[in-house]
Amino acid sequence: MSTPAQLVRTRGTKRVTTTDIARAAGVSAATVSKVLNGRSEVSMRTRMRVESLLLQQKYERRPPGRGGPPPILDLLLREVGNPWGMEVIRGALEAAAEVGLNVVLSVLPDGARGCRWLDQICARGSRGIIVLLARLTDTDKAAVRARGLPLAVIEPRGEPDPNVATVVATNWAGGYAATRHLLELGHERIGIISGPQDLLCSHARMSGYCEALKAGDLPLDGGLVRWGDFDVDAVFEQAIAMLSMADRPTAIFAGSDLQAMGVFEAARLQQLSVPAQLSVVGFDDLPQSRWMSPPLTTVRQPLAEMAARAVRLVLEQGHEEQKEGRSVEVATTLVVRDSTGPPPLGRRRSL
Amino acid sequence: MSTPAQLVRTRGTKRVTTTDIARAAGVSAATVSKVLNGRSEVSMRTRMRVESLLLQQKYERRPPGRGGPPPILDLLLREVGNPWGMEVIRGALEAAAEVGLNVVLSVLPDGARGCRWLDQICARGSRGIIVLLARLTDTDKAAVRARGLPLAVIEPRGEPDPNVATVVATNWAGGYAATRHLLELGHERIGIISGPQDLLCSHARMSGYCEALKAGDLPLDGGLVRWGDFDVDAVFEQAIAMLSMADRPTAIFAGSDLQAMGVFEAARLQQLSVPAQLSVVGFDDLPQSRWMSPPLTTVRQPLAEMAARAVRLVLEQGHEEQKEGRSVEVATTLVVRDSTGPPPLGRRRSL
Repeated sequence: MSTPAQLVRTRGTKRVTTTDIARAAGVSAATVSKVLNGRSEVSMRTRMRVESLLLQQKYERRPPGRGGPPPILDLLLREVGNPWGMEVIRGALEAAAEVGLNVVLSVLPDGARGCRWLDQICARGSRGIIVLLARLTDTDKAAVRARGLPLAVIEPRGEPDPNVATVVATNWAGGYAATRHLLELGHERIGIISGPQDLLCSHARMSGYCEALKAGDLPLDGGLVRWGDFDVDAVFEQAIAMLSMADRPTAIFAGSDLQAMGVFEAARLQQLSVPAQLSVVGFDDLPQSRWMSPPLTTVRQPLAEMAARAVRLVLEQGHEEQKEGRSVEVATTLVVRDSTGPPPLGRRRSL
Repeated sequence: MSTPAQLVRTRGTKRVTTTDIARAAGVSAATVSKVLNGRSEVSMRTRMRVESLLLQQKYERRPPGRGGPPPILDLLLREVGNPWGMEVIRGALEAAAEVGLNVVLSVLPDGARGCRWLDQICARGSRGIIVLLARLTDTDKAAVRARGLPLAVIEPRGEPDPNVATVVATNWAGGYAATRHLLELGHERIGIISGPQDLLCSHARMSGYCEALKAGDLPLDGGLVRWGDFDVDAVFEQAIAMLSMADRPTAIFAGSDLQAMGVFEAARLQQLSVPAQLSVVGFDDLPQSRWMSPPLTTVRQPLAEMAARAVRLVLEQGHEEQKEGRSVEVATTLVVRDSTGPPPLGRRRSL
């Protein structure tokens, strides 16, 4: 009735069924189920054939019926330990609990990793995946899509992907607001140590910084522009180098609140007091940042809200005709505390 | 053959089976299964009858066979957001991943909450429960035991319970070491702001502090002893009050690294420099504490290792004849950094 490569939908159904895919692939429906449920006993060749048909035909996972174990949502992190991640976890747990979802938390490290992580997610009947800072390859994303699993990424890494639903903060506006705040205080030597270079958000913040300088008629000085890392040690070294310059900056905009801690410590070791001799702005507004000494001026990103939006993006995907990725931007706000002030006399900008 | 209240074991089996329990309770085996699997359609009365028999007969959950979804471990937190918790989560995820377990993370707030949380855990076929700072009532613990679910508690709250497996740090020794370090530097006015009063660990640390003072022939001054909270604001207020005293302390031992941040900020507002005029010791050694300004001297508790021990305690319970609680103590170590030094001249102790 059907040639292997051609798909004939089961009569009267709108959704593509596993039977349809099985017929088209020339395998049994049980084999298709095995691929969808993350079972390992399918050959690589058959698996790829089934996956490519699932992808091509936009297979949608049928929501499970009532009863049975409570449904699961998967939250994948690049690493656990960053306090930034804690806020996102909190937001995801709260939003998931509201709709009766349980959250499985896993680490998805960078680098080659096969598809066992995805098999496990399928095997537990997950309703969808939220990814935080972990890097998904194109193969990863295609495999997720093939299995009809909703996916949302918070602050993606690498190139933007229009096919994936993403949640980001208004990073550009945040970088602009932080820099403008420093300009308004009279600073003209403003350094930036931005986050990891492979994060889109780092670039957006850097770009907001550049634009604010331009709007303030200040030239961009390459010596004041540095890229940081996830690691505070690296940022600390950058800050020490920047503060050792003859014409050192009077203000530094750090890529995160954690990085701002590294800048504070560099200032202390250089015997520069914050904010009298050096103003510092962070990014995140973690709960503990108001307890830094002095309390940190920072760009607040509503991390818990971002996670909640990601949960909603995942749940909505199951109810849509079109499964195109959508991007949500959540507003940042500048929170002015005590780590910023006017530059020392004699280094003040004539406004 | 058997009266409802009496239990006759199925011939030839060593374990108590659901059939045995069902006979004794005068209900069907399906009803017992419903209780064990967290299904709601059982009357409260029947449920309590079944639970009490399960408890009395020391029912053990049979480990699931091969295949099926990957097994789950439940990690219950009192709250998400504390950076302390992040380290514990990290340790639990790593230890669970090593043995192929997936971790479901949930919040179990204080106060009345029924047994829906436990039903959900049973319904997903959890292998066991790890509890962090959340308060379990006796009813909670009995219900967990009745269902044959292994349980381990990290840093328990309330009274010690010999029936529950626990993992704690050597809190007393940590409190002793921190205080002794300050005594050796020449301090004699040493304040303490310990953690929440309903945590056993807060008391153990306080007790170590008192013992070290005694060993150093110093009297205990009630004005220098305060109880803190999970909340840094409260600790900050306590520190301000203590540092406003005429005979203010020259050193403060804080209940946690986060609390030490509150003490740092109180010192800054009172224009006392750390450590020249005030030494501060924390407790935890969170990853970011070495980035405090100055880097924090603190008592390290190996939080990730504690979580790993809890995972092992849970897994071992399934393989033992006796299911008695066991307590594991994990060693703390003093990490000396830059927030402690000798007291100001004139306030130094004659040793």
